[in-house]
Amino acid sequence: MSILVVGSVAFDSIESPAGRAERCLGGAATHFALAASFFTKVRVIAVVGEDFTDKEESVLTRRGIDTSGIEHAPGKSFFWSGAYGSNLNEAQTRATELNVFQNFSPKIPAAYQNSEYLFLANIDPVLQADVRAKMPNVRMVCGDTMNYWINGHSENLAKVLPGLDALLINDTEVKMLGKDDNLVRAARKVIELGPKSLIVKHGEYGASAFFSERSFPGHGDSLAIPFRSPSMPLADVVDPTGAGDSFAGGFFGYIASQPELTPAVFKKALFYGGVMGSFAVERFGTERIAQLDRNEIEERFETLRQLSHLD
Amino acid sequence: MSILVVGSVAFDSIESPAGRAERCLGGAATHFALAASFFTKVRVIAVVGEDFTDKEESVLTRRGIDTSGIEHAPGKSFFWSGAYGSNLNEAQTRATELNVFQNFSPKIPAAYQNSEYLFLANIDPVLQADVRAKMPNVRMVCGDTMNYWINGHSENLAKVLPGLDALLINDTEVKMLGKDDNLVRAARKVIELGPKSLIVKHGEYGASAFFSERSFPGHGDSLAIPFRSPSMPLADVVDPTGAGDSFAGGFFGYIASQPELTPAVFKKALFYGGVMGSFAVERFGTERIAQLDRNEIEERFETLRQLSHLD
Repeated sequence: MSILVVGSVAFDSIESPAGRAERCLGGAATHFALAASFFTKVRVIAVVGEDFTDKEESVLTRRGIDTSGIEHAPGKSFFWSGAYGSNLNEAQTRATELNVFQNFSPKIPAAYQNSEYLFLANIDPVLQADVRAKMPNVRMVCGDTMNYWINGHSENLAKVLPGLDALLINDTEVKMLGKDDNLVRAARKVIELGPKSLIVKHGEYGASAFFSERSFPGHGDSLAIPFRSPSMPLADVVDPTGAGDSFAGGFFGYIASQPELTPAVFKKALFYGGVMGSFAVERFGTERIAQLDRNEIEERFETLRQLSHLD
Repeated sequence: MSILVVGSVAFDSIESPAGRAERCLGGAATHFALAASFFTKVRVIAVVGEDFTDKEESVLTRRGIDTSGIEHAPGKSFFWSGAYGSNLNEAQTRATELNVFQNFSPKIPAAYQNSEYLFLANIDPVLQADVRAKMPNVRMVCGDTMNYWINGHSENLAKVLPGLDALLINDTEVKMLGKDDNLVRAARKVIELGPKSLIVKHGEYGASAFFSERSFPGHGDSLAIPFRSPSMPLADVVDPTGAGDSFAGGFFGYIASQPELTPAVFKKALFYGGVMGSFAVERFGTERIAQLDRNEIEERFETLRQLSHLD
């Protein structure tokens, strides 16, 4: 099965206590696609500038990712520069240059039309809604967003949420969107806004999934309570950039590799999300995930199971 | 088996978004003892003033807790007053009156000498070391501490840590004590300071246990990785006061109820810690735990298992 991801492909300059990396390949669609590529076929819709060369493209194509939907435009690619302090939880943005991304208007190639799964990475909800509308027959749609859209573009975001099978955001974003300081109450309110399920990423503490009666038609009885998946306790976190997108890639990639979305598949997918998110932060940019092999993924999955299971 | 707990028995006046409670029974030893009492026999060493009456004592004795080690001194009991804002993570202290607790000098009644388990709640590490030294034959010792002792009394604390089988503290305290912003590295450094195992309480995100080769002699091979236990996602948190002590009571109480400390027992104990911590916050003071029954505990344990286990 194929996942179509629409989002940013960018260059990031990152400083953290572990060092500095200049203009690494980044962007939400990049991190998502690489993580998901270990589980299923991935197709990317994005826009890049003239600074995006065969070298960058080959990072994706080496993983079998279809890049034919990446539009090349005159000018420079989206560029972000940021620095992490010692707690690594929040980046201080030094520069954001939208460049060609400013006028991004996603076009869906004919060859992508039969994609069964759709991931709407964190972009303008107007574009998310547009892509969603153009893919009415997908089996499942997941999406991300951020404080900028929640605060300033809530009416547009409100049109996207009912079209999502799962929304993946972090604690702060859930509380902002649900207008409540309590996670459980905020999560319930977010689900009332439309997504069938909600995944809350807690960073180093793992993730929680909240369900509704629409999450798994025919499997409702097992889902009265949320589900918590762990993350990997790491002694050396080099670069948290892209961890959330890599989590989403592991989560959705695993789901797309399975014949049916059951509660058991959803839960395992959350563990795979934790696996891919934890690999992502071990090196700058895409370095760790791009070099990964499937055995390492299965080993870490087993570690997360041992870490969290009583027997 | 009997657990001896030494710590504070106090009155707390608490304000939270859920309301206000005046002079509820509180103190670390109180919360610990009540939670542990569902699993094993508990004996308390503490000091109270003339305001501690039969009414307060009966909250403990009704749960079968041995209060003969609670010293009654002239004056008033330890009193704390604090307020929680909407995020409920940190209390703003309004008043701390040590009163009779100022000159607390723990005395171990003869009838308590045969206690097999010892919990050193958060008190002056000089007193913790003194009690520890007077109980050389206990099977297992757990302890708590806080930023005040870590920052200002580190030499005294350093004498307590090597005598602990497990130290139970929160994220901030681990990072402070281990002098490292990364949890895993900080945890390793704390274990080098002496405790055989370290339990880090993450509040609403559960807890992590870090082990050493001294944690389970003869069981070392299963413990190369930490263990993570969940907490209960709650829509209504009334009063977080005492949650950590209730967690410790559930954890240590369960261990004391088992014939041997194995890795499997330790892990289940962490789940029981999460169970008792989550009940503690549902009402002000000791109200929820004092009224609990064992069935509710087992039900919540099963909920935590479903919440975190793949199958």
